[in-house]
Amino acid sequence: MQAQLIALDWGTSSLRAYKLGPAGVVLDQRSLAWGIMHLPTEPRDIAGVRCSDGFELAFDAACGDWLDAQLNLPVIACGMVGSAQGWSEAAYRNTPVDVASLGKALHRVRSMRGTDVYLVPGVIEQVGLPNVMRGEETQVLGVLQGLGADVLIGLPGSHSKWVEVAEGCITHFDTFMTGELFAVLSKHSLLGRTQKITEEFQAEAFDRGVQVALSEDGRRGVLSTLFSARTLGLTGELAGDQQPDYLSGLLIGHELAGLPAGARHKPIILVGAAALCARYQRALALCGFDHVSLAQEATERGLWQLAVAAGLTQPALET
Amino acid sequence: MQAQLIALDWGTSSLRAYKLGPAGVVLDQRSLAWGIMHLPTEPRDIAGVRCSDGFELAFDAACGDWLDAQLNLPVIACGMVGSAQGWSEAAYRNTPVDVASLGKALHRVRSMRGTDVYLVPGVIEQVGLPNVMRGEETQVLGVLQGLGADVLIGLPGSHSKWVEVAEGCITHFDTFMTGELFAVLSKHSLLGRTQKITEEFQAEAFDRGVQVALSEDGRRGVLSTLFSARTLGLTGELAGDQQPDYLSGLLIGHELAGLPAGARHKPIILVGAAALCARYQRALALCGFDHVSLAQEATERGLWQLAVAAGLTQPALET
Repeated sequence: MQAQLIALDWGTSSLRAYKLGPAGVVLDQRSLAWGIMHLPTEPRDIAGVRCSDGFELAFDAACGDWLDAQLNLPVIACGMVGSAQGWSEAAYRNTPVDVASLGKALHRVRSMRGTDVYLVPGVIEQVGLPNVMRGEETQVLGVLQGLGADVLIGLPGSHSKWVEVAEGCITHFDTFMTGELFAVLSKHSLLGRTQKITEEFQAEAFDRGVQVALSEDGRRGVLSTLFSARTLGLTGELAGDQQPDYLSGLLIGHELAGLPAGARHKPIILVGAAALCARYQRALALCGFDHVSLAQEATERGLWQLAVAAGLTQPALET
Repeated sequence: MQAQLIALDWGTSSLRAYKLGPAGVVLDQRSLAWGIMHLPTEPRDIAGVRCSDGFELAFDAACGDWLDAQLNLPVIACGMVGSAQGWSEAAYRNTPVDVASLGKALHRVRSMRGTDVYLVPGVIEQVGLPNVMRGEETQVLGVLQGLGADVLIGLPGSHSKWVEVAEGCITHFDTFMTGELFAVLSKHSLLGRTQKITEEFQAEAFDRGVQVALSEDGRRGVLSTLFSARTLGLTGELAGDQQPDYLSGLLIGHELAGLPAGARHKPIILVGAAALCARYQRALALCGFDHVSLAQEATERGLWQLAVAAGLTQPALET
């Protein structure tokens, strides 16, 4: 099948490349370790010229052969590749944004081999405390197709995003530094010292963490409840191998407790790694959120739709 | 003046020794780097015997000469020296505790030189989530003398304690991991990368952090507001040298927002390092806490009173 688009999901620590066919169907895909903070450094010839630029090298490795096989294939990319530390800066666009407005705002960078790469801008919200995302906007737009009503989209991770969508438009979002906090506390704080890492998910400990966050004790905030990961160990109520999942449940519980009150009755869609989404789904159920579903292939679908909106490729023929 | 008591404040990272005279007046004092996690390792003769035990070596360095000069001087010690990782474990006592009950529960360890050292037990509260302290109970009891009414005592630090006292009795306390979280976030998270350390206190940034914690945005919790330390940098509203004090104000603000509602009208006494107490005093004022004062020499006063309650030394003669 003839390819129509190359779509790159290019973040801080990884680079995923998709070759998409008609209607955005995935014909081929690759995953490389060359996120923008881990670019290749060994010089190589590209289009007959010696090259030592990390972005060019990574781009060539990700899809050079696809472009050689089909010269005029358009390329779109989202994620940190468009940040100030990326290949070229695609300035943030203010909320509200939808597929049409973001598709018109792609930022072009010309690669050494002469191919234009269209970078998706990140999104900024400047009502109250400023909030930014870069990459997640594409995932959100990718799951919206066919959804009419208002939804809340959760993207768990180092910096979890919760994105409110109305009429196909991103209207508001919040960030929670849950994943990064879990990592730094486990690696560098007193709490990590008594943690024992285990393969098996400690469901009971996780649930207890969520429930503590929701409890009367939880109202003092996470700065206070965190200490219980230590004291429950001291009193023998939490074994070392239960402590990581207790802390995970506690932090996720506090994150969910911070969602707007109205969120409880909206349909929720989770986007992200399966194991992490499973944790959030479990915690959401404990918090009384009823309508939770999981989305697949959000990034490649979002990139496809943005490319269509930008006129880089043609939508599927309506039949 | 004749000494009556040796009082040791022996924590994780430091050891302070006080030689106290009648009525607990400080005759001499020393500060050593030998906290229980940093004990001396070079063997030395103590009382004619070769010794390589770190606790014995540190104890001898702290007050061996005082004991040589005055053989039967009693010794009391508080802090992590009485923990499971300490010299000998002085098991936690349950709340409520006061000077009389804690003074009766001192745990004795005999040193190589034949001197008994009396260790003050830590305190545990087992209503709801368990909470523990070790060392702070002595400081709290040290500032209570002469105070009749109910007070709230704040001990800012890595693990800040807020201790409710009624009728001279410790009835309830909470812990907030504020100081440790500030340290690990500054050293190991994304937020630290754009921080510039400066000598000068950035009052405006600190106040802004406190106010964000108290604002409508703050209700989503610290996992969410933390990200503003990054985004306010991205939008040019917070320079690199303002970011550490913004984060400090934000975390302290969330801590204070977690205090019980009734705390606002109680007299508050702060105990701790002067610079840190000054930050808390500033934040408390922004939060509308009216009656805040600072206590001095809390530890040595507390150790003196516990020693009196235990019968190790005599109180001042009433005149």
